[in-house]
Amino acid sequence: MRKSLIGVDLGGTNVRVAGVSLQGEVFHRRKESTERECGKEVVIDKLIRMVRRALEREKREGRKVVALGVGVPGVILVRRGIIVSSPNLPDWLNVPLKKMIRKEFSLPVVVENDANAAAFGEKWIGAGKGSNSLVCLTLGTGVGGGIILDGRVWHGEDGMAAEVGHTTVNPDGPQCKCGNTGCLEVYASATGIVSEVRRRLKREESVLKKSFQGREDLFRAEDVFRAAKKGDRVSLKVIEQMGRYLGIGIANLVNLFNPDMVVLSGGVTAAWKDFIEIVEEEVRVRAFVIPRERAKIRKARLGDNAGLIGAAGVALQAVRGKD
Amino acid sequence: MRKSLIGVDLGGTNVRVAGVSLQGEVFHRRKESTERECGKEVVIDKLIRMVRRALEREKREGRKVVALGVGVPGVILVRRGIIVSSPNLPDWLNVPLKKMIRKEFSLPVVVENDANAAAFGEKWIGAGKGSNSLVCLTLGTGVGGGIILDGRVWHGEDGMAAEVGHTTVNPDGPQCKCGNTGCLEVYASATGIVSEVRRRLKREESVLKKSFQGREDLFRAEDVFRAAKKGDRVSLKVIEQMGRYLGIGIANLVNLFNPDMVVLSGGVTAAWKDFIEIVEEEVRVRAFVIPRERAKIRKARLGDNAGLIGAAGVALQAVRGKD
Repeated sequence: MRKSLIGVDLGGTNVRVAGVSLQGEVFHRRKESTERECGKEVVIDKLIRMVRRALEREKREGRKVVALGVGVPGVILVRRGIIVSSPNLPDWLNVPLKKMIRKEFSLPVVVENDANAAAFGEKWIGAGKGSNSLVCLTLGTGVGGGIILDGRVWHGEDGMAAEVGHTTVNPDGPQCKCGNTGCLEVYASATGIVSEVRRRLKREESVLKKSFQGREDLFRAEDVFRAAKKGDRVSLKVIEQMGRYLGIGIANLVNLFNPDMVVLSGGVTAAWKDFIEIVEEEVRVRAFVIPRERAKIRKARLGDNAGLIGAAGVALQAVRGKD
Repeated sequence: MRKSLIGVDLGGTNVRVAGVSLQGEVFHRRKESTERECGKEVVIDKLIRMVRRALEREKREGRKVVALGVGVPGVILVRRGIIVSSPNLPDWLNVPLKKMIRKEFSLPVVVENDANAAAFGEKWIGAGKGSNSLVCLTLGTGVGGGIILDGRVWHGEDGMAAEVGHTTVNPDGPQCKCGNTGCLEVYASATGIVSEVRRRLKREESVLKKSFQGREDLFRAEDVFRAAKKGDRVSLKVIEQMGRYLGIGIANLVNLFNPDMVVLSGGVTAAWKDFIEIVEEEVRVRAFVIPRERAKIRKARLGDNAGLIGAAGVALQAVRGKD
């Protein structure tokens, strides 16, 4: 009988459950709205139901599921499978998710932070395939991070490692919502890019001002990237600044970890061509030659599936480690 | 028969060889001047001779040496025991030191970067005893670093990890000798502190100006620390600035690694009382609460012996790992 895995991505908006091969291919995938406003019991019931359905399908298709992995945003006690807290699931405090899932299914279960799972997925079969160590940065609403060393997630002592988005790249920079000033997230997240453009629109001319005619609160990072492609100076300058600080953050990672690779994912990578040369130039100036020639900077390959596939992958690694 | 280790610290100035217990106590220690100007063959002969003598003494005292560790400044290929290059031993290029020592003595040998060895030593029996992960910063002429994760040195893919001194803490800061600007080393090394005081002496009053009467090139970091204790404003301001940037660098380490501990060693820690509160305040503002409450900031305990003891310790770990 062929073996397989179940990968779960439990997000604030959607729950996604997939059957995944031991090589990381997705056989089938279902998505349902999380409905977190209904409370965690409802969400957990939904998750259990979706997993049961996926297990049945795996059985029907002649595969034996050997492990299940769940990716969740937030602080996770990985060994015990407890969700300590989650910014996207506010009522989830100290939820023993691993125990709850194991009660339903007699399967090895791993609960992992979603950014760590995504980093693991990219390392396993994505942009970082074949590497031994990598740092993955997700440039989305915020800036998340995952660190893979010697093929394993580095969690830190409290499961709080890899907060790359909240390393300081400019001590006197703008306020970040985390309380610090000049975090990488302030410059390299979609939110940060939009804020910076808005600040500049107060005193500079831009096509964005005309397109949105006083409704600047409506535009999003995608509009900035589109305007940049048309040559809008404000948009180009903000993306250039973003590239500079992202390069500083990456140079620090290169000098600290000396990794095989730095992988960038998330919506902001839509502006890749506008920022990647600036990033690389900054890394060239700031990092040592041997580690910087080692560390390729690559765009993520797995898109939305990274967390799902990565969660399945860490679960597989956990059962293999016990062989 | 009791077992023991040999630890070697091969520096640009001195070669030190010690007999070390499996618990990290130093039984005996010898130091000779490196005389690097005589060339690497002479230095290696000296090292071999000193090791032979230490082995004979161990035998005489009834102990069986089970492993030998050497700490060396520079880039090391740890698995193969090759010194790629060393800033303090300029003619040492691609020297297969492990092979050379093993030819003389039938003993397991480990060659390790000296800052990594010092970090391991502090973790093993020093300020970090009992911890699982720590980052060690040596604030000396430069700023060196060593990273211990899950009880093991993280080397990076080229043995170039842990260059904490060359992470950017102020993108527009002064030039560093590594080519970057605003590295932690520019602020938190003895050299950096002296340079900054000199810059300020051109336009500010200070007791240092009077003490050295136009010979400002003669004073050292120790003089700055002494002047600060007497209330010299320039010295205090420079140490305060040092504390601020050191705090920024440490906050970044705390958010990236979520370690048990950050250990500070080196001559600059003589000014501990003048900077530690500033460092802690900066970390409080910039790092997340869970990892910052975890990560104790401590002064190193092993002094000059850290590298020697740590080299013996990594050698012991290597032979134990093979049991």
